[in-house]
Amino acid sequence: MKILILNGPNLNLQGRRDMDIYGTQSFDDFFVALERCFPHVDFARFQSNIEGELIDAVQQADGLYDGVVLNAGGYTHTSVALRDAVAAVALPVVEVHISSILAREEFRHTSLLAPVVMGSIMGFGLDSYRLGVEALLLKTQK
Amino acid sequence: MKILILNGPNLNLQGRRDMDIYGTQSFDDFFVALERCFPHVDFARFQSNIEGELIDAVQQADGLYDGVVLNAGGYTHTSVALRDAVAAVALPVVEVHISSILAREEFRHTSLLAPVVMGSIMGFGLDSYRLGVEALLLKTQK
Amino acid sequence: MKILILNGPNLNLQGRRDMDIYGTQSFDDFFVALERCFPHVDFARFQSNIEGELIDAVQQADGLYDGVVLNAGGYTHTSVALRDAVAAVALPVVEVHISSILAREEFRHTSLLAPVVMGSIMGFGLDSYRLGVEALLLKTQK
Amino acid sequence: MKILILNGPNLNLQGRRDMDIYGTQSFDDFFVALERCFPHVDFARFQSNIEGELIDAVQQADGLYDGVVLNAGGYTHTSVALRDAVAAVALPVVEVHISSILAREEFRHTSLLAPVVMGSIMGFGLDSYRLGVEALLLKTQK
Amino acid sequence: MKILILNGPNLNLQGRRDMDIYGTQSFDDFFVALERCFPHVDFARFQSNIEGELIDAVQQADGLYDGVVLNAGGYTHTSVALRDAVAAVALPVVEVHISSILAREEFRHTSLLAPVVMGSIMGFGLDSYRLGVEALLLKTQK
Amino acid sequence: MKILILNGPNLNLQGRRDMDIYGTQSFDDFFVALERCFPHVDFARFQSNIEGELIDAVQQADGLYDGVVLNAGGYTHTSVALRDAVAAVALPVVEVHISSILAREEFRHTSLLAPVVMGSIMGFGLDSYRLGVEALLLKTQK
Amino acid sequence: MKILILNGPNLNLQGRRDMDIYGTQSFDDFFVALERCFPHVDFARFQSNIEGELIDAVQQADGLYDGVVLNAGGYTHTSVALRDAVAAVALPVVEVHISSILAREEFRHTSLLAPVVMGSIMGFGLDSYRLGVEALLLKTQK
Amino acid sequence: MKILILNGPNLNLQGRRDMDIYGTQSFDDFFVALERCFPHVDFARFQSNIEGELIDAVQQADGLYDGVVLNAGGYTHTSVALRDAVAAVALPVVEVHISSILAREEFRHTSLLAPVVMGSIMGFGLDSYRLGVEALLLKTQK
Amino acid sequence: MKILILNGPNLNLQGRRDMDIYGTQSFDDFFVALERCFPHVDFARFQSNIEGELIDAVQQADGLYDGVVLNAGGYTHTSVALRDAVAAVALPVVEVHISSILAREEFRHTSLLAPVVMGSIMGFGLDSYRLGVEALLLKTQK
Amino acid sequence: MKILILNGPNLNLQGRRDMDIYGTQSFDDFFVALERCFPHVDFARFQSNIEGELIDAVQQADGLYDGVVLNAGGYTHTSVALRDAVAAVALPVVEVHISSILAREEFRHTSLLAPVVMGSIMGFGLDSYRLGVEALLLKTQK
Amino acid sequence: MKILILNGPNLNLQGRRDMDIYGTQSFDDFFVALERCFPHVDFARFQSNIEGELIDAVQQADGLYDGVVLNAGGYTHTSVALRDAVAAVALPVVEVHISSILAREEFRHTSLLAPVVMGSIMGFGLDSYRLGVEALLLKTQK
Amino acid sequence: MKILILNGPNLNLQGRRDMDIYGTQSFDDFFVALERCFPHVDFARFQSNIEGELIDAVQQADGLYDGVVLNAGGYTHTSVALRDAVAAVALPVVEVHISSILAREEFRHTSLLAPVVMGSIMGFGLDSYRLGVEALLLKTQK
Repeated sequence: MKILILNGPNLNLQGRRDMDIYGTQSFDDFFVALERCFPHVDFARFQSNIEGELIDAVQQADGLYDGVVLNAGGYTHTSVALRDAVAAVALPVVEVHISSILAREEFRHTSLLAPVVMGSIMGFGLDSYRLGVEALLLKTQK
Repeated sequence: MKILILNGPNLNLQGRRDMDIYGTQSFDDFFVALERCFPHVDFARFQSNIEGELIDAVQQADGLYDGVVLNAGGYTHTSVALRDAVAAVALPVVEVHISSILAREEFRHTSLLAPVVMGSIMGFGLDSYRLGVEALLLKTQK
Repeated sequence: MKILILNGPNLNLQGRRDMDIYGTQSFDDFFVALERCFPHVDFARFQSNIEGELIDAVQQADGLYDGVVLNAGGYTHTSVALRDAVAAVALPVVEVHISSILAREEFRHTSLLAPVVMGSIMGFGLDSYRLGVEALLLKTQK
Repeated sequence: MKILILNGPNLNLQGRRDMDIYGTQSFDDFFVALERCFPHVDFARFQSNIEGELIDAVQQADGLYDGVVLNAGGYTHTSVALRDAVAAVALPVVEVHISSILAREEFRHTSLLAPVVMGSIMGFGLDSYRLGVEALLLKTQK
Repeated sequence: MKILILNGPNLNLQGRRDMDIYGTQSFDDFFVALERCFPHVDFARFQSNIEGELIDAVQQADGLYDGVVLNAGGYTHTSVALRDAVAAVALPVVEVHISSILAREEFRHTSLLAPVVMGSIMGFGLDSYRLGVEALLLKTQK
Repeated sequence: MKILILNGPNLNLQGRRDMDIYGTQSFDDFFVALERCFPHVDFARFQSNIEGELIDAVQQADGLYDGVVLNAGGYTHTSVALRDAVAAVALPVVEVHISSILAREEFRHTSLLAPVVMGSIMGFGLDSYRLGVEALLLKTQK
Repeated sequence: MKILILNGPNLNLQGRRDMDIYGTQSFDDFFVALERCFPHVDFARFQSNIEGELIDAVQQADGLYDGVVLNAGGYTHTSVALRDAVAAVALPVVEVHISSILAREEFRHTSLLAPVVMGSIMGFGLDSYRLGVEALLLKTQK
Repeated sequence: MKILILNGPNLNLQGRRDMDIYGTQSFDDFFVALERCFPHVDFARFQSNIEGELIDAVQQADGLYDGVVLNAGGYTHTSVALRDAVAAVALPVVEVHISSILAREEFRHTSLLAPVVMGSIMGFGLDSYRLGVEALLLKTQK
Repeated sequence: MKILILNGPNLNLQGRRDMDIYGTQSFDDFFVALERCFPHVDFARFQSNIEGELIDAVQQADGLYDGVVLNAGGYTHTSVALRDAVAAVALPVVEVHISSILAREEFRHTSLLAPVVMGSIMGFGLDSYRLGVEALLLKTQK
Repeated sequence: MKILILNGPNLNLQGRRDMDIYGTQSFDDFFVALERCFPHVDFARFQSNIEGELIDAVQQADGLYDGVVLNAGGYTHTSVALRDAVAAVALPVVEVHISSILAREEFRHTSLLAPVVMGSIMGFGLDSYRLGVEALLLKTQK
Repeated sequence: MKILILNGPNLNLQGRRDMDIYGTQSFDDFFVALERCFPHVDFARFQSNIEGELIDAVQQADGLYDGVVLNAGGYTHTSVALRDAVAAVALPVVEVHISSILAREEFRHTSLLAPVVMGSIMGFGLDSYRLGVEALLLKTQK
Repeated sequence: MKILILNGPNLNLQGRRDMDIYGTQSFDDFFVALERCFPHVDFARFQSNIEGELIDAVQQADGLYDGVVLNAGGYTHTSVALRDAVAAVALPVVEVHISSILAREEFRHTSLLAPVVMGSIMGFGLDSYRLGVEALLLKTQK
């Protein structure tokens, strides 16, 4: 089982910004814990602040991975192009958010990705990623 | 660990309605599988088509359970009163949906519950409940 | 031919409220006339002010009746849950309104039920029910 | 009893267009059946694709007929002028639609006619006309 | 000085419809009075319920008349095509309304014509026409 | 003078939820104080989380009480059916809210009840009820 | 016949501002011409930039004048209070605008005054005032 | 206890305008009754049609009075500046309205004041003031 | 190959109106050039200001022509009825506009036709027609 | 160089209200510092809570000053009349705000002044005025 | 004649995604056909998923090419920056879309590019590019 | 004092595009003048058309500079991701615009950045940058 964790803009700052919202654990630390938690999963990860590089990553993941856990950050609400990329590939993509996008500023209430992903998980802090991996595993067990 | 699975309107028909959207497994069958999957969790479940009975159930769960997995069905989008009940109690509530509410008719795109729950999970079929339980377990491990 | 007349909130007050809009005939009196008018139809009727009881009634009517004439009153405009119930059952449901919902306050201009019923009849006073029964009969003649 | 069946734009194509929505029976065939169904009613009918000719027809019907069954087609949603014509005449007008306008594209969800007609019937296929005639008859019996 | 009085849909019913709004004087009677009031003006008038005939009339008036007093009735709010016709011709057009469009139903609050006419007069009953003629005269005196 | 205090959803939790908004006094304690404050008034009270039971209560209060002080909680903003019930009865109803609905989340800014009640009082904490009773007394003194 | 010409904010600058929109004639010069044009009318005029002074002026005009020609300038679109003043007095008020409010920026498209005045005239330059006086005279001749 | 009754635009016409909405009692007469009703309160009152004078009055009341009963009339819906004044002062302000602003034209449905006052009372006729005074007294008793 | 060029309202004025937007070439002159440019195509053309005549023309073109190049002018944005006609016929229709409707007034930004035509071409002046013909030819070559 | 500092409603309370937003320095103290900071500028200042007095001040400043630094406070968002005054005068006006209007309540997000001023500065506390003066100086150096 | 074909996000997947909407021909294959079809045109092409690289490409094309055929994909609806780039350069840009953006999801109905391009072509499959080239050729022939 | 001037999309074209809006001075020339104007400030500058590179630049500036003057160009209105970057860093960011975004097309009226920057300056041409530097200096003097 090969899973790509794909992180969008500003997620490289995780643990250092808006700590009351996003928590203080860095993504590096969390990633170690995640790998330990799912020893049979082969994880890769990629982060970019550039919308088009995320589109490239989604396109290239098709065939290489069994699934993607995608936190598109601020592009969730604005990127028709990223949505089109997710819709264009065959591999299952799970949308995750650290905080609940429906509980914050109004401009975060929409997800252009939601209609084209397998499912969405939001609000559980970094555990949202963990649940996203779980969701991909449940699917492959069928 | 005691968890209440709380189902809103029409979820008693699960497996018999809109089967292309909701699947064909009945909730009874799923519930057996769920219990088997989490042998250390003590599950209870309740379903009602009546908004106020769901409010009652949320209020009464406070103190009796360690968490609630709530699928409020059609009340998700319209019930300020149910939202207020969830906000009023201290116990963690996870919002789940079988299909993705953001991917269906426009009147389903809002969740009045999202800002007051611990987190939201949608679009994974009945597995959304499974992930909801997982989310409650992850929380208690902290 | 068995038909259920299902009345929503405040329709128990028919004949005693807003008489310039709804007329002065009580529903009891009208029901007698309705039965006399369609001697070959076996009518039942149920009224409730409680949204969930109407949902229950719709669910339970499935299999027991050949059709439902439904006046959902104020729930017409607000109840996603009742709409889901109507969509979930196989039996034909005709939506009726005593007055024309499109000719009154703006918050009555929408019907969440319209897209899931067989058809809608509004504005003919209590005769809307009569036409609703007629519509069910026309359908069974095919 | 003299009733005018007044059809708006594209209804001359009935039976040949969007047959999954409107059915395959031509209006000519249906009209024969309608006359046979109500032997005591003296029917006339008129169809035009031209908004102003429909306005003319409504104005001229006043005094000549006991009622009008009007399917204004696409003008239902856009014609303030036709609405004004219906409001200006004394004779009862019943609005009918083959499909349910509330269940289709958003731009069909409004009826400018609804507030000025006697009542509205929609969604019953060509039977909507039959019910419209019935509604006019019920009224004259009072 | 040659002026065309151009009337849109349902204005042929003036004096016989919605008399509390439009008054009881027929347009024929009013027209006689209007001619008497402005003996040096050569009046013509035309009424049609058909949008395109009004467009034709506006186009043809160009060159034949020194100005048009236009009451477009219900087309005021919906006809981009009539607006384009008025914008296309060189002759001055005054928009008049018997009642105040800004004081009635919301769908009457817009005038597509207002930005392309010389000026607008509304709410003075049939005197709106009289003031419209006056406005054209004032203009030619300059 | 007989007055019914009618409380909607979650008001049974008064004193135990959102205490910075609603205060810490329980409704039981407040009710004792209220009775002491108006010794000549015969008070009854009823609370329900179920929309339809509130509708029932409003209907049944007609004739039994001289007035109702109604805090409809979350149903204030969503219940067309409860509004219709209040509009249908003859007895004076005063709408009260502990906090100011116009000062909180946008979905609480509307009151469907306001147009059909005698008057509205909001923002004074539990004193809103006291003022509501006062308002009913002032009315009967006329 | 006594008529008050009531001018709102910035109309004291007439002839010196936005001359392509408002023209170059000062209001003083125009007023002389207006008086000459209607020798039998006794004119008064008042201008203020202060909303409340215009409200005062409207209130005090009641009884002193036979009519008011009101150009409320920028308050046309924003002043509920001025509208209430016009609605409160018995004397006929004609609303005039030099340019057409419906043909300029969107925030000028509404007139809060229109529903409470006798009628509205806009777009004829300073001649709008002349037509406003004419309108008052026509009314008194009845 | 010193209380200022502060009245906004057109309230000097109370008893003489829109008497079906506002009643026929003049504010002078009502004020006498109000003083008699609360003999231990030292009342002052001020009315102005000018937004800025109301702002001045609110600012100057701070320190001189124990509370303000404010009916801002038409400025309720439009004056950000008055709202800012109320928010800036320390003294308790109660918002009152003779009629219910939520039950009238849509442009009256908002109150810019509601989020910054102690509470709001509307719809009880002139008794709204009486209840406003009562509300201030209840507060000081704590 | 037989192609109908169908022109809507005011296009008979082409070359004489809004020449900075539409250019100065008359449609007659352009049509000669168009025929010369496509010698193997058999062109017909029809223009009408009347919405219903355009509907008639679309209906009658079905079977007679291999395709239609349609410039519906102002009806593009308002005519549900014309849209329904285009949707009802089997022949390919290309929508063209001389100027870009998305680059002008907001009320021109919508095309009711776009979802039911083969494709849309706008903004190239009269060359839009030329490209429309080209598009029909490309299609038939397949 | 002569510059007028023009302050709108509630700015006389600067330093005493909403101190977390506006700071604690009074405008008097700040003004002394401002004068010291620009010794070659001849400053005047004026504050009023009355919309019309601000309009008067803008009109009268024309010719007397080389520029205006205007903080219109709450009138920024609502006063079409003040905007018109600024647009009518020839002198350069710089709009300043102590806090950022785009970062506060939604009703403060618009500035009617922005399109007619030389430029806007917001969010720098009282330094916004300092920068406003700087902006006027930069302009005159050209 | 040198023309740049500029493709935005996900167009590198052409022929492999959403084949019912976009067809099965790869852009490589189509490009060969395009070059063969216009032997006298010197074509270049560039595709990027990155918004800023498209902006770079538009800027650099200025002077190097005689025109651009631009399919901005998902950036059509969201990129103010790309629009500004197109507006900033002197060379003619034709906007093309494979499917009709006005006939798909609502968030695709706007084109920020349309007001700044030479013209727009949509809905003809890959032939939209062919027509785009044609349009550039027609222009240069003038 | 080290300040980064950060320019977004198309600002590399400054002086060569839309010169009536942005002026004719190139940014290179302006930058020389800027450095000369503030001899004690150590300036760096960076421009990119790529949203993600601007995000990178903001993140990396944190710690290296004492402040950023940011003109995000078209990303001002659309980039949630850039906003999040600015909110995430500790260093003061001043938002500048050459023209006033509130005075141009409606889609430019919002700034996603405004709520997270220190302050905003717009409309002063290239002097907006100069004032932005000034603002940073004023801040450090405190």
